[in-house]
Amino acid sequence: MYEATATAPVNIACIKYWGKRDTKLILPTNSSLSVTLDQDHLRSTTTSRADESFAAGDRLWLNGKEETIKEGGRLGVCIKGLRAWRKQVEENDSSLPKLSEWPLRIASYNNFPTAAGLASSASGLAALVASLARLYQLPQTPSQLSIIARQGSGSACRSLFGGFVAWREGSDAAGSDSLAEEVAPREHWPEMHALICVVSDAKKGTSSTSGMQRTVETSTLLQERLRIVPGRMDAISKAIQDKDFESFAKITMVDSNSFHSVCLDTSPPIFYLNDVSKSIIAVIEELNRSSGKIIAAYTFDAGPNAVIYALEENMPKVLGAINKFFPTAEESEDPFRTTAEDLPASFDYKVVREGGWEKGAVKSLIHTRVGDGPRTLGKEDSLLKESGEPKVLA
Amino acid sequence: MYEATATAPVNIACIKYWGKRDTKLILPTNSSLSVTLDQDHLRSTTTSRADESFAAGDRLWLNGKEETIKEGGRLGVCIKGLRAWRKQVEENDSSLPKLSEWPLRIASYNNFPTAAGLASSASGLAALVASLARLYQLPQTPSQLSIIARQGSGSACRSLFGGFVAWREGSDAAGSDSLAEEVAPREHWPEMHALICVVSDAKKGTSSTSGMQRTVETSTLLQERLRIVPGRMDAISKAIQDKDFESFAKITMVDSNSFHSVCLDTSPPIFYLNDVSKSIIAVIEELNRSSGKIIAAYTFDAGPNAVIYALEENMPKVLGAINKFFPTAEESEDPFRTTAEDLPASFDYKVVREGGWEKGAVKSLIHTRVGDGPRTLGKEDSLLKESGEPKVLA
Repeated sequence: MYEATATAPVNIACIKYWGKRDTKLILPTNSSLSVTLDQDHLRSTTTSRADESFAAGDRLWLNGKEETIKEGGRLGVCIKGLRAWRKQVEENDSSLPKLSEWPLRIASYNNFPTAAGLASSASGLAALVASLARLYQLPQTPSQLSIIARQGSGSACRSLFGGFVAWREGSDAAGSDSLAEEVAPREHWPEMHALICVVSDAKKGTSSTSGMQRTVETSTLLQERLRIVPGRMDAISKAIQDKDFESFAKITMVDSNSFHSVCLDTSPPIFYLNDVSKSIIAVIEELNRSSGKIIAAYTFDAGPNAVIYALEENMPKVLGAINKFFPTAEESEDPFRTTAEDLPASFDYKVVREGGWEKGAVKSLIHTRVGDGPRTLGKEDSLLKESGEPKVLA
Repeated sequence: MYEATATAPVNIACIKYWGKRDTKLILPTNSSLSVTLDQDHLRSTTTSRADESFAAGDRLWLNGKEETIKEGGRLGVCIKGLRAWRKQVEENDSSLPKLSEWPLRIASYNNFPTAAGLASSASGLAALVASLARLYQLPQTPSQLSIIARQGSGSACRSLFGGFVAWREGSDAAGSDSLAEEVAPREHWPEMHALICVVSDAKKGTSSTSGMQRTVETSTLLQERLRIVPGRMDAISKAIQDKDFESFAKITMVDSNSFHSVCLDTSPPIFYLNDVSKSIIAVIEELNRSSGKIIAAYTFDAGPNAVIYALEENMPKVLGAINKFFPTAEESEDPFRTTAEDLPASFDYKVVREGGWEKGAVKSLIHTRVGDGPRTLGKEDSLLKESGEPKVLA
């Protein structure tokens, strides 16, 4: 049986990807940089199997529900690209089984609810690419694989590495140099922790795909952002090399705000931050001020959820601040059993609206940390039954 | 008795003033342009009296409460500047009474509550300057007077004209060419109406004075905004000359969004728009889309209140949209007795959160229109008693 199972992590950008110079190939208008989060907590798992005896045509199930694989769609593009590489491998070694000609059965599963509002396309596409590359025994490096993942979902390319990851915008019109690279492995700075604040939102926001194109077409400030980002990429890479949290945090916050600025500068304007998001920003800014140094950095993707980066030693303070003002509706289990600390004495409570936020304004908290890249699992973790149908997961 | 009473209007900018190149003289980093609103609805009234027999020292009451006139403060600067001009007048004509040497008693009153969140400093300082200029019989033009008003409160300079008013940033380091000019009088486009939506806010925001300086010091995108504004000034001036509402509206909305973008791009970020403000934006954008043309333009100053510009003929549609989604807590009287119209058939209700907004999210509505510049009133409208103390107003 020819089958491989892989897991891939979520990544959260510190320098944001916003804008495509080529929408078909998903070539970005600027480089970006992210922290890969620990798969022990958040992951996509994908099993891919090739079998001559399967009925013709590839099939794929996501969380048990079959998805259509469209020619040129995000899934179709990745499968096609990896199959073409397998074909080359087979052409160079005629003794190999012709997996590239066999139908595929693929099952994928995210261990976090879609309702959490976390981008599952990055980890999902990365797990698909990792499992197929393993199944096909491809000789390509993670950076080369990231070129395929990128065409499925831009930021998925960064989930092919652990640690701190750059997606280089590249200059080739065909996209051959628009790929992910490791800036530093997780082992370089394992103290980097993250707290995801899942924020309730009454209204579904603009999709990032359509939003970023509207920004490219209408924002008057985007070009200036694009001139600024290269310097920020260099500066944050240096901060990571030097394990300089204050610089890392400053750049992360400034770039998140810059990204949301160009969203607001779009016509019609795009808003991802809601009043709760803004209040989290105010609390973290005040936590830093009253701590006498920058101990936490907020960042927001295309939605109201906050991701707060902090070193492990400072997470008790961050948790203390968030618990204080944003009582969650659901009890969250902290895998590190962190005990929340009181706020600094000089913390100005007036930064939050009087009476604080109602229970559930922040739905839940996920405490995690920097993690490794895609992992290969054994047969016992297969998501497919003998028949090639997806297993039913509890 | 030497006394003069004047009223001055509120103005709401379409091209926003945000940033000073000289904080002492209040010289802006960019030109701005506003619509003067009708004093029949919103106004500041000021009576100034000079009397040899008054106890030494100037005194001023705002809404019945005495304010300290500080040397170099916003009131002190205006009084000092106008008194110096009066002194010149007296030196050129020795037959004139030496008003410049006599103590002043000044009473000022705003007919709109401070709680409405409308900037009263512009109309207040303009009324002060207009009444003193009248009392002192100064030969200066409104543009020259605007230089004095500007030093009290930047945007006050625009309230010395009616209609459509530009504040030219100027280039002189002493500020002699940073003044207001009429772009078009109200009579040119009297159909321009405005609906002010007074939005509740749980938290007091950043003051514009400190906020704009933080933007100047930290925003990475402000310089780009400053490069863009001159083109917008030309384009909106042309739109006003041509009575081209669609262009006027597009530029107004884009510049409001650009202003709030650079606020967000500030460190720490500044947010003036709250979830209700953003929802008003979504409703107006959808009203324009579903109307097949741009019939309304939103703009927001340094706070959550919306000002919606629309031509008189389209105000029923605007009122219909706002009433539909933002039931006010207070019944507002419409001086034009406008009847709200139903939403266009293709209006997509999903742009507002499900169930709409609770009563009072928008506190009240003020329907007004483009208005004239400062007016001189008669003795019967004096705000001062014989004694020089302020009258008690009901």
